[in-house]
Amino acid sequence: MSDSNAFAPPEFLPGWVWLVGAGPGDPGLLTLLAAHALGRADVVVYDALVDERILGLAASGAERVYAGKRGGKPSPSQPDISDRLIRLAREGKRVLRLKGGDPFVFGRGGEEALALVAAGVPFRVIPGVSAGIGGLAYAGIPVTHRDVNSAVTFVTGHNAVGEVPDGLDWPALARGSPVLVFYMALKHLGAICDRLVAAGRPRDDAVAIVCKAATDQQTVLETTLAEAAARAVAAGLEPPAIVVIGDAVRLRKGLDWLGAIEHGRVLDADPLGLKRRQQAG
Amino acid sequence: MSDSNAFAPPEFLPGWVWLVGAGPGDPGLLTLLAAHALGRADVVVYDALVDERILGLAASGAERVYAGKRGGKPSPSQPDISDRLIRLAREGKRVLRLKGGDPFVFGRGGEEALALVAAGVPFRVIPGVSAGIGGLAYAGIPVTHRDVNSAVTFVTGHNAVGEVPDGLDWPALARGSPVLVFYMALKHLGAICDRLVAAGRPRDDAVAIVCKAATDQQTVLETTLAEAAARAVAAGLEPPAIVVIGDAVRLRKGLDWLGAIEHGRVLDADPLGLKRRQQAG
Repeated sequence: MSDSNAFAPPEFLPGWVWLVGAGPGDPGLLTLLAAHALGRADVVVYDALVDERILGLAASGAERVYAGKRGGKPSPSQPDISDRLIRLAREGKRVLRLKGGDPFVFGRGGEEALALVAAGVPFRVIPGVSAGIGGLAYAGIPVTHRDVNSAVTFVTGHNAVGEVPDGLDWPALARGSPVLVFYMALKHLGAICDRLVAAGRPRDDAVAIVCKAATDQQTVLETTLAEAAARAVAAGLEPPAIVVIGDAVRLRKGLDWLGAIEHGRVLDADPLGLKRRQQAG
Repeated sequence: MSDSNAFAPPEFLPGWVWLVGAGPGDPGLLTLLAAHALGRADVVVYDALVDERILGLAASGAERVYAGKRGGKPSPSQPDISDRLIRLAREGKRVLRLKGGDPFVFGRGGEEALALVAAGVPFRVIPGVSAGIGGLAYAGIPVTHRDVNSAVTFVTGHNAVGEVPDGLDWPALARGSPVLVFYMALKHLGAICDRLVAAGRPRDDAVAIVCKAATDQQTVLETTLAEAAARAVAAGLEPPAIVVIGDAVRLRKGLDWLGAIEHGRVLDADPLGLKRRQQAG
């Protein structure tokens, strides 16, 4: 018999804020704790990146508050969101702060949590599947693979005021990890690719742009560093997008399991051609 | 009313393999799809890193196959595991391959998937919460934070044969991201810290060693690059461990929500001292 005590969630108490990651899109990638919280919250304060189907799991009486931000334009502002969380908690509500992906991966969860600490509001953090890992898995791209990389770097495509992140050591970034994953990278894609090429990444380095990862509208554009920005514009791509750079992209020929299931794509068991090369040698 | 159709999992068909991430430890961090798969699998092939409470969610009749590996010692070997998955699937079983964390984050999920492709066995990938993100969140450490970093790098602490990963550009690694997260890093911790210091990271760079993250036995040791290896030995730390390096560790003073809940730890809303410095200036 399955052990029904294995999942014994903590009680969601009035006056508490739970900072919860909703995962990349597919409601099936919600954690048990996130689903539990959705069923019990009095109010759900959610981001633009949270899928409508996930909000559908909230209890019928729950209030929904949209706190969306996109493309680096802060509206409402971060302090406004934090103040709202504090106010709702002080009203004795069970406050679910629901963020796309994981709250601590470019999600500003730490900032909101520190505002709660300053206000004396108790909170809990529920991690989620990050889009840069789980969203890419739905595109058939593993962020690590033994024959490709023993390091992977996650980078935000814009800083707090919406600019290309300064303060990054681009040459070190370019050389430090064979695989780079950029979040929210569409806006400055040209600048990002230019800097990476200037820093020594090959112009034909493989790039995949995964839009609306792990949703029914997921699209994947495979391209190169030299062509990515123009191709993205030509294809009319829109955020949210995850951009992954490096040979991990080439594994998609073998690992696009969703393409195989939904579109009958024939997968190549040797996507990097390593075995074919061995046999030829 | 909550929308019960929001989570409509695919059918787990006989002869299929689902490669599933179990998350870092807490059963509450399982995804809905992982829990669904556990309830339906005929056989669960699991790793050393999968929590016993999670296996308790498997159906009563399900066969459990241990395929543990630890510390870089491959036993059973990776080809043996892949062969076993293929054989079980060909017997018409619903095969759940359950891995700690996420299957594509230093989990060799890609290798197993490619073996399935070669054998013509259909499969699906269910991402999980990676220990280097969600496990650290349970230790109160956000892998990204606006005042600390716009990039984070995940590195494996040993390669396929159990050695310190060669082929890494350590100077670039050291400078590319303010925050570095090492998986399976305990074995070679001294060598890793030495290389990072040689590559320019300060000797007093903050380090946290999080053992058995997001389980009841979680421990967190805060130290520095210069002292980490000796402190780990003195404390008798054992794997599994995640090692995080950089100022993200200092945020723990403000964000150790689990310490606050379980041990009444008083959190500091200004863990980096930025506001105190502003006021003083």
